Amino acid sequence: MAEELLEMGQRLAEIGRRLDDRNWVLGTSGNFSVVVQRQPLRLAITPSGVSKGALSPNQCLEIDADLAVIQGTGKPSAEARLHLEIVTARGANAVLHTHSLWSTLLSDEHASREGLGIEGYEMLKGLAGVSSHQHREWIPILENDQDMARLSAVVRDTLTRHPASHAFLLRRHGMYTWGSTLAEAVRHVEIVEFLLEAVGRREQRGGVPWRS
Amino acid sequence: MAEELLEMGQRLAEIGRRLDDRNWVLGTSGNFSVVVQRQPLRLAITPSGVSKGALSPNQCLEIDADLAVIQGTGKPSAEARLHLEIVTARGANAVLHTHSLWSTLLSDEHASREGLGIEGYEMLKGLAGVSSHQHREWIPILENDQDMARLSAVVRDTLTRHPASHAFLLRRHGMYTWGSTLAEAVRHVEIVEFLLEAVGRREQRGGVPWRS
Amino acid sequence: MAEELLEMGQRLAEIGRRLDDRNWVLGTSGNFSVVVQRQPLRLAITPSGVSKGALSPNQCLEIDADLAVIQGTGKPSAEARLHLEIVTARGANAVLHTHSLWSTLLSDEHASREGLGIEGYEMLKGLAGVSSHQHREWIPILENDQDMARLSAVVRDTLTRHPASHAFLLRRHGMYTWGSTLAEAVRHVEIVEFLLEAVGRREQRGGVPWRS
Amino acid sequence: MAEELLEMGQRLAEIGRRLDDRNWVLGTSGNFSVVVQRQPLRLAITPSGVSKGALSPNQCLEIDADLAVIQGTGKPSAEARLHLEIVTARGANAVLHTHSLWSTLLSDEHASREGLGIEGYEMLKGLAGVSSHQHREWIPILENDQDMARLSAVVRDTLTRHPASHAFLLRRHGMYTWGSTLAEAVRHVEIVEFLLEAVGRREQRGGVPWRS
Repeated sequence: MAEELLEMGQRLAEIGRRLDDRNWVLGTSGNFSVVVQRQPLRLAITPSGVSKGALSPNQCLEIDADLAVIQGTGKPSAEARLHLEIVTARGANAVLHTHSLWSTLLSDEHASREGLGIEGYEMLKGLAGVSSHQHREWIPILENDQDMARLSAVVRDTLTRHPASHAFLLRRHGMYTWGSTLAEAVRHVEIVEFLLEAVGRREQRGGVPWRS
Repeated sequence: MAEELLEMGQRLAEIGRRLDDRNWVLGTSGNFSVVVQRQPLRLAITPSGVSKGALSPNQCLEIDADLAVIQGTGKPSAEARLHLEIVTARGANAVLHTHSLWSTLLSDEHASREGLGIEGYEMLKGLAGVSSHQHREWIPILENDQDMARLSAVVRDTLTRHPASHAFLLRRHGMYTWGSTLAEAVRHVEIVEFLLEAVGRREQRGGVPWRS
Repeated sequence: MAEELLEMGQRLAEIGRRLDDRNWVLGTSGNFSVVVQRQPLRLAITPSGVSKGALSPNQCLEIDADLAVIQGTGKPSAEARLHLEIVTARGANAVLHTHSLWSTLLSDEHASREGLGIEGYEMLKGLAGVSSHQHREWIPILENDQDMARLSAVVRDTLTRHPASHAFLLRRHGMYTWGSTLAEAVRHVEIVEFLLEAVGRREQRGGVPWRS
Repeated sequence: MAEELLEMGQRLAEIGRRLDDRNWVLGTSGNFSVVVQRQPLRLAITPSGVSKGALSPNQCLEIDADLAVIQGTGKPSAEARLHLEIVTARGANAVLHTHSLWSTLLSDEHASREGLGIEGYEMLKGLAGVSSHQHREWIPILENDQDMARLSAVVRDTLTRHPASHAFLLRRHGMYTWGSTLAEAVRHVEIVEFLLEAVGRREQRGGVPWRS
């Protein structure tokens, strides 16, 4: 395996331990990817069916834009198509997908409005390009679907319709976010998870999301 | 002690630390087992009265189908009979029992219906053989009982009546799940614990379990 | 410092890290002790004003029944008197005091009844001498008091009036439990904390403590 | 870089890991500082845009009272001005700022009263100079503001009007506390976070903060 892929695998393994410690990738849920090169597109991605808290660097796979495995052994995540959509539509270099409790709960309760607006929190400034807590972030919610070709098309459409969104939720499933670097994508996971828990606990206390 | 048993003890100790970190085996609660051989049946099992987060590999015991200790010193868990029922009825090679907060709470609140139905969550796909979030998982709830012979019979009957269930709860006590491998059983613990917390928090927010 | 005291300090430091990881001794709250000898009584006890998650073995003090420091430098915990009452009244060899969120909340809400009854949970079997979930544990609640001589007398009286109790709460303050060994006392902390959270979350969901 | 600054960076990195483990500085939120010298004032402070759980000692910056970087490379936290106000107004030698869930929620719900009174909890004794749970702590709440010059003036005014307060909250943003030493400031973070969660959960259970 090329040294570059091993290095990326090492970084994905570290991220896996961090997110696993927070119970955001329980079971073998979640998947992570990072762009290896753009022309032609190559993605380093976590394999299917592996605990993200116990990833070995050499379990990382390299795939192309047609989901073919270029390097490494194993099956890429079934949701690899969604990663490809995101890196193409957003120019992102890293994509992280988690299955947290709060993204599961809120993606369900706000599904009828097809999204969740969050505004007024300082933590919003952790999202790339946001410089004030007065920013309003719209987090689209998509119906879950086992048909990845169909879901990819919905993701593509959603990213087009909401060009400023930093993340989206799949209903009763989990959260996708991305970044220009892996570090930025990790930061986005933490920011969005924090905000979802804040909104969720606020609603539970009888409040409503601020101006959402 | 045979090297094989030590190796299994090592793996059970690692699992113990992981589940203990999540507060699913506080005190000396919980017990874990793995099939050493089938003919005749031999089980490696954690001893009674030990903190599962501080297991030593050599504390692991080997027992036979009559609960006799074949290797190791100490008393096998009082619930060893339930482990034997499960490995026999399900052909499982590993059984994990935890005492989490959410299994304790939900096993009580749903006791009158003798079980809890969970449907519509992506995390269900972490259960062996489940390929869609539309799967409906029925988690039977059994009354707790200190008479292990009597409880074993109830477990056996429950496993027969619910052949597709991946786990069951003992009321105000905890959760049992299993797998064809230890890794699968650990995955099932994490998936079921996640789903129980999701359902429990959803109910608390005024919702009801989806189509349950 | 005598090697025996250092060894006890080492064990108290390990316990401190474990309880600190669970947020049961935040700030410099909590204190731990273990009996060094009975005739005359000598207690190894944690010093005042130290984070229990960052204890050094040599910070441990040895005190006598009059609170005089026999070995080590520093001030013993202001609550050392309560430890002495407990080891005398109960014949306990170890005493642990924690400041958890749930003990703080429940000690307040149940204060008017001067205690909290817990019954019907399997986890009760983690308390020394309890062999069935049908056991009813009464956890007395005492008003908090900065006058240690006066509070000691109340503790002594409480222990006499409730000879079967394994723990007590100080109102809006925290929990005391003990054991015949340090390991038993740690187990009691985990069991009581688990039960308090279970009761607290159950009440919050609209239920009432079972037959309490 | 001077050895003294590296040592301070080392201590800030340790504190960062501790607070990050508790999810109080998710993303790249939070910032920490410690006084290097008083005449003229020099502050060691964490840089902007870095995860506080992954700080390297050499990322620490030294700034003067005009926010100029004296040692180290990088941009000081945008909120460095607030740190300078606090060390000047309070004579504090260390300032810690966190973004926790409960400070975010309570700073919002109690904003109309411009603060939150907490009384009757033993944990209050972890605040410097407090010797009884009967102490009443007033935690001022300030409107969040991206204009640091303006916010600094509000902080200065708040510290003057509430000379006994050990901390303040920025609305939907987070918490500031300080201490005569770094250890004291860390203790204050833990005490205030504990108290905020206790008050928040109590309110959620239908109670009201005691005499607040």
